[in-house]
Amino acid sequence: MISKDMLALGTKRSVIREIFEYGNRRKAEIGAENVFDFSLGNPSVPAPKEVTEELMNLITNTPAQKLHAYTSAPGDLGVRTAIADFLNRTYDAKADANKIYMTVGAAASLTISLTAITCEGDEVIVLTPFFPEYSVFIRQAGGTPVTVACPAPDFQPDPVAVAAAITEKTKAIIINSPNNPSGIVFSEASIKELCNVLEDKQKEYGHPIYLIADEPYRELTYDGVEVPYLTKYYNNTIVCYSFSKSLSLPGERIGYILVSSNATDADDVYFAVCGAGRSLGFVCAPSLFQYLLPACLGKTGDVNIYKKNRDTLYDNLTQMGFTLSKPQGAFYLFMKSPMEDTDAFCEMAKKYELLIVPGEDFGVKDYVRISYCVSEDMIARSLPAFKALAEELQLG
Amino acid sequence: MISKDMLALGTKRSVIREIFEYGNRRKAEIGAENVFDFSLGNPSVPAPKEVTEELMNLITNTPAQKLHAYTSAPGDLGVRTAIADFLNRTYDAKADANKIYMTVGAAASLTISLTAITCEGDEVIVLTPFFPEYSVFIRQAGGTPVTVACPAPDFQPDPVAVAAAITEKTKAIIINSPNNPSGIVFSEASIKELCNVLEDKQKEYGHPIYLIADEPYRELTYDGVEVPYLTKYYNNTIVCYSFSKSLSLPGERIGYILVSSNATDADDVYFAVCGAGRSLGFVCAPSLFQYLLPACLGKTGDVNIYKKNRDTLYDNLTQMGFTLSKPQGAFYLFMKSPMEDTDAFCEMAKKYELLIVPGEDFGVKDYVRISYCVSEDMIARSLPAFKALAEELQLG
Repeated sequence: MISKDMLALGTKRSVIREIFEYGNRRKAEIGAENVFDFSLGNPSVPAPKEVTEELMNLITNTPAQKLHAYTSAPGDLGVRTAIADFLNRTYDAKADANKIYMTVGAAASLTISLTAITCEGDEVIVLTPFFPEYSVFIRQAGGTPVTVACPAPDFQPDPVAVAAAITEKTKAIIINSPNNPSGIVFSEASIKELCNVLEDKQKEYGHPIYLIADEPYRELTYDGVEVPYLTKYYNNTIVCYSFSKSLSLPGERIGYILVSSNATDADDVYFAVCGAGRSLGFVCAPSLFQYLLPACLGKTGDVNIYKKNRDTLYDNLTQMGFTLSKPQGAFYLFMKSPMEDTDAFCEMAKKYELLIVPGEDFGVKDYVRISYCVSEDMIARSLPAFKALAEELQLG
Repeated sequence: MISKDMLALGTKRSVIREIFEYGNRRKAEIGAENVFDFSLGNPSVPAPKEVTEELMNLITNTPAQKLHAYTSAPGDLGVRTAIADFLNRTYDAKADANKIYMTVGAAASLTISLTAITCEGDEVIVLTPFFPEYSVFIRQAGGTPVTVACPAPDFQPDPVAVAAAITEKTKAIIINSPNNPSGIVFSEASIKELCNVLEDKQKEYGHPIYLIADEPYRELTYDGVEVPYLTKYYNNTIVCYSFSKSLSLPGERIGYILVSSNATDADDVYFAVCGAGRSLGFVCAPSLFQYLLPACLGKTGDVNIYKKNRDTLYDNLTQMGFTLSKPQGAFYLFMKSPMEDTDAFCEMAKKYELLIVPGEDFGVKDYVRISYCVSEDMIARSLPAFKALAEELQLG
């Protein structure tokens, strides 16, 4: 008598969450220091000091009545202006404060954007590997997810495969770079090829195909790699951003949607975003965390800690005989399963108290995700376990 | 090519918002002190001191990594336990922490609850006068709103009319007491009669009819009136609560859903709530404002300020010849339009710089809403304007 879909979503935990819960039980049994939990994408680096300083400043110096009042539904205009200025200064993004809509993080940015643009029967393309909640969000908006593989081992988008998947019903494509779970950053060449395909298909079908850029990991990059800013490459771009990872504030739920000013009927797309936010019950993004942003734009936690973790794991696991793509962003390593049965491999890893996530939920059966947003110390302690696992598998 | 419904919702401002924007333009023209803006429901009383103290305490004494991390999706268990204990201590509510789901405020509480329980084709009853976004939220969840009038001038629910409106398709009824826009508190007798009707109709149709209690104004009551706690009167109750008004934190977006432990298949209803929250993109409620709550449960801003405003306005306007119901809760006065054409009356009020909201959007054509969550000083200054309006209308 209640919604069967919602009951199913609420009852069935994600695989990631299952492993995390197993980890908690196991830690209680054998001690937290003996379990090597690489399952979750929870930032391990603390928020930059500017966050705490500005929170104290706001609470001390702004009257509570103003600080905690409703902002306008799209967000405080001063905050949106600061964000637009930052994006224009940093990426030449041609962002307009009046095309920014503040949200409670990336998931909300996605559900609002998808609800704004999706009509019943529309298809939305997602590129594997992808964050599994994309399918949930697309279905909630009334659309159908269509998956297209990014080929291993470099996991760059495949323009030919994307072109083949686009139909008259294609309303949008979601891309996520730096990528969860692969850690891959899509190159400028890949982006250009992909945008050419989208431009051609827009002409062929005579309607916009939106490029939704899910970018919570934008600032978490290594080796000097650049993440192309997509409004410069494609007009019908909607950027979904979150400060969860850059400012290590995942619990506070603060992010935004930017509709490109050059999008077809950009005003209408933005109004539909406002309508979707209203309809889904968002009212406004948390005011204190909106007001925090101008002082923190461009700041991040210490990204070098993630880089060091990546290097330690990548170098050691490669030497042990595991096969990994070297990621240049986010805080995930995507590793090829050394066994045909990936689930069996993850179970075997558990024997050594190593908790890693099978790739099937991300749409890639023969890989596993290792989240390295963990302490340096845990990584050091985990290496003998990985070594023992490699030896049981007779790798190297 | 985008969603027409979302575009319409985003383009068409609510009447309240239109009047508020008119007020801002008018203030720029003739000075803020000369405009008497009674349009918005934004708390005018500052947050209680415990809010600021506990925010400082949390930011100073909790490591940022813990304070700003993801909580579990339904919310931190310690926070939910504190809320359940408070509800049980205060209202004998029989609340269970494992049936509480933390949300970003009342609107989200409603969209999540409605999405959890509504199946395509379901009807949801709303009682006029009602907060106009209810219709938006019901439609978003795939349901159809059915309105039933609470008769003027006391605006208590009419059990006979509710019984007549219930059909096989009725999935839920939303009630809001203390009420926006009438300020009326539903009496225990009214609640009992209403619940009897719902029990009878559940038996008749053989399935649950949920009572959704939207309660952001629960603590804002005057003259010692009590607001019955609905889990005690009806098993299939879902309480949608927000701290926006009680703690004067409307911009921070923090509230919760409580599923009655006695609801039919209560576990499934709660899981469906979790599924709906996930599907709509909520992830978790803001962590800092979750952790704030245990220290602030039962606290409010200074409710006496609202009471004083109510008394000043009610006494003076009644004396001038206007007809008002005396509200015992929230911060709204509902006044009968002294002209047949309510819009014309609101336009006439504008000549005296009085900004009040016609009742049509709340489902009651011949009334207007006056929000008295404003400064005492503005009320004093507005009285000559009301007086002049009464004289033009030859009232009294």
